[in-house]
Amino acid sequence: MFYFDNSATTQPSETVMKVVQEVAINYFANPSSIHFMGEKSKALLNSARQQVAELLDYKESEIYFTSSGTEANNWVFHAVLPALGSLHSERKKVIISSIEHPSITAQIEMIERMGYIVELAPVDEDGVLDLKSLAQLITKDVLILSTMSVNNEVGSIQPLDAIAELLKDFPQIVWHVDGIQSVTTQFENMLNKRIDLLSLSSHKFHSVRGVGILAKRQKVDSEPMLYGGGQEAGLRSSTENLPAIVATAKALRLSKESQEIVKPKLKLYREKICQSLTSQKWQVYAEQTGSEHIICAALEGVPGEVLVHALAEKSVIVSTTSACSSRKHQAHHTLKAMNIPEAISTSAIRISMSHTTTDEDVTALINAIEVVSQKFNK
Amino acid sequence: MFYFDNSATTQPSETVMKVVQEVAINYFANPSSIHFMGEKSKALLNSARQQVAELLDYKESEIYFTSSGTEANNWVFHAVLPALGSLHSERKKVIISSIEHPSITAQIEMIERMGYIVELAPVDEDGVLDLKSLAQLITKDVLILSTMSVNNEVGSIQPLDAIAELLKDFPQIVWHVDGIQSVTTQFENMLNKRIDLLSLSSHKFHSVRGVGILAKRQKVDSEPMLYGGGQEAGLRSSTENLPAIVATAKALRLSKESQEIVKPKLKLYREKICQSLTSQKWQVYAEQTGSEHIICAALEGVPGEVLVHALAEKSVIVSTTSACSSRKHQAHHTLKAMNIPEAISTSAIRISMSHTTTDEDVTALINAIEVVSQKFNK
Repeated sequence: MFYFDNSATTQPSETVMKVVQEVAINYFANPSSIHFMGEKSKALLNSARQQVAELLDYKESEIYFTSSGTEANNWVFHAVLPALGSLHSERKKVIISSIEHPSITAQIEMIERMGYIVELAPVDEDGVLDLKSLAQLITKDVLILSTMSVNNEVGSIQPLDAIAELLKDFPQIVWHVDGIQSVTTQFENMLNKRIDLLSLSSHKFHSVRGVGILAKRQKVDSEPMLYGGGQEAGLRSSTENLPAIVATAKALRLSKESQEIVKPKLKLYREKICQSLTSQKWQVYAEQTGSEHIICAALEGVPGEVLVHALAEKSVIVSTTSACSSRKHQAHHTLKAMNIPEAISTSAIRISMSHTTTDEDVTALINAIEVVSQKFNK
Repeated sequence: MFYFDNSATTQPSETVMKVVQEVAINYFANPSSIHFMGEKSKALLNSARQQVAELLDYKESEIYFTSSGTEANNWVFHAVLPALGSLHSERKKVIISSIEHPSITAQIEMIERMGYIVELAPVDEDGVLDLKSLAQLITKDVLILSTMSVNNEVGSIQPLDAIAELLKDFPQIVWHVDGIQSVTTQFENMLNKRIDLLSLSSHKFHSVRGVGILAKRQKVDSEPMLYGGGQEAGLRSSTENLPAIVATAKALRLSKESQEIVKPKLKLYREKICQSLTSQKWQVYAEQTGSEHIICAALEGVPGEVLVHALAEKSVIVSTTSACSSRKHQAHHTLKAMNIPEAISTSAIRISMSHTTTDEDVTALINAIEVVSQKFNK
């Protein structure tokens, strides 16, 4: 199997699975228990939190573990927005970039029902936020601005440093960044100090499912996301998923440390794959500006699903849009925001890599692209 | 180590860890992906859901996986209550039993802020819901009634069949049961067909952390608990935690199947332990009416924390109240509802067992109780 769907999910590494096993068995006591087994679990939890804090350059007390990236993204509008809204009742606007993941966009209706006005920030033809338009949307009425670090469908890298500049005169605006697709090759891009809230998801960087991270600056208020025993400083009650949290801290460290090796490797792979696609008459999106690990391309006239299945017959695993949208046969959300006509965007696929991607995988992919393209280009 | 804190959390079984490992590595693809690896994951998810549905006697489409018991309990008031409230704006009351877990009681303030009136249903001296009082609270203004199957602090078994009788003339009241402490020995008690919503938590029955179950009858409306990619029939978006879900379905089956062996075994253990406690001048609560696996007892004049640490010195692990309350040094919530004076309830500990509890554990516990009691009874 040649797996190119790493943006949907990655395979947990052996190292991660060993940590899960070790912690699940030997540190199984509840970190909230006051006996020494509980204290041992609590200490391990604290050290995982400290490790994540250092990797992301936040304070330990600013790291909150959730159950998923979706939950972290929901936290922003379910719990932070009401807290801000009650402090600043005169501010009624929320800005969301037009290429966000469904875990953000599916909340828009709810945000509007809560009485806020949602404005969508447009992107250019490469899927990069249009800074001029964004500058016009940023006013003192805005409570939250929500953008991405790396887009999940076309891989476009968002200009976070430039956005931070735009926000210089608006310290009161809470800026959320969805960094979920940023870990593999664009770790640095999500570390801008102006970012107030950052979401991550364990299973996108070879950890096990079941852990999201919300890094939240101390100054940002929040209501509880889940009510109960008072875990996560009272904001997200639930017995902590210690084995998965410890494994995730480790996987995050490995991702950050390997960045400088993985980036150039995947950049070369990406160039080779894009070259092959272009030579076979595919349209490649964000070719020059995209992140090293994601390629989005379309073969006009052939539905994305047909392409996915044709490549799968050659044991090459790619996806249409994001996994979270693919079963719903939704139009390609990001390409739509990039003004790509539906006639061609429905023919798009996503090829997504990771540090586990090998020369052999890439050769198999390029061969499969050739065979499939020739079949449909006839 | 002699572990008697199984109501706080249980050690994942070897069988469960093997399932986690196997699924995490071999079924790692995202169940939402349309390629055949995704389809394979999706099929496994469906079969786990089917298995849980059969074990709990619900339809497959009525089983929702969350990240924890706390999340399942939050779902009731975060997502079901608003949906009911907008359908039945004339009904404004919620009844909650006075001995619920913090994951229910911590929501009360939020429920009241939403504009509802919360009434607490009292319990008798054994921690069992007082049916006469409950009957008086049940009126046609009530939207939701939330009770437990087995109390987490004293082990009292709630009379769910009798409550179902009380609800006979009120089919419109949605009845939620927290079954989280019921799996070990009181599986049957939570299966009453009148129950509309049932919460469970994976790590209370030897599965890994990270899975809660909300069984929800089809007729009960709900808003989404998490917004995003539309997983869990659109009500709880998030990439499904497949390894932990499959392991949890298996652990639930093993718990149900072993019930008839575990119940009498733990009943005998409980009798022996209670006898020892009583002979050492401890006050035992719900002694005759409690669940087989939980014992709550107090040694007057000695703080619960001191007892926990004294027993831990003999390698015997017990807890004060629920793990979720213990670090907060809260008064014993259930004993308070049972009208036990604080002078003695602060001296209470909880001893909680599981099918893994052995003769050797019980002997060690009884010896340690003897030593510790004699020290403090001097």
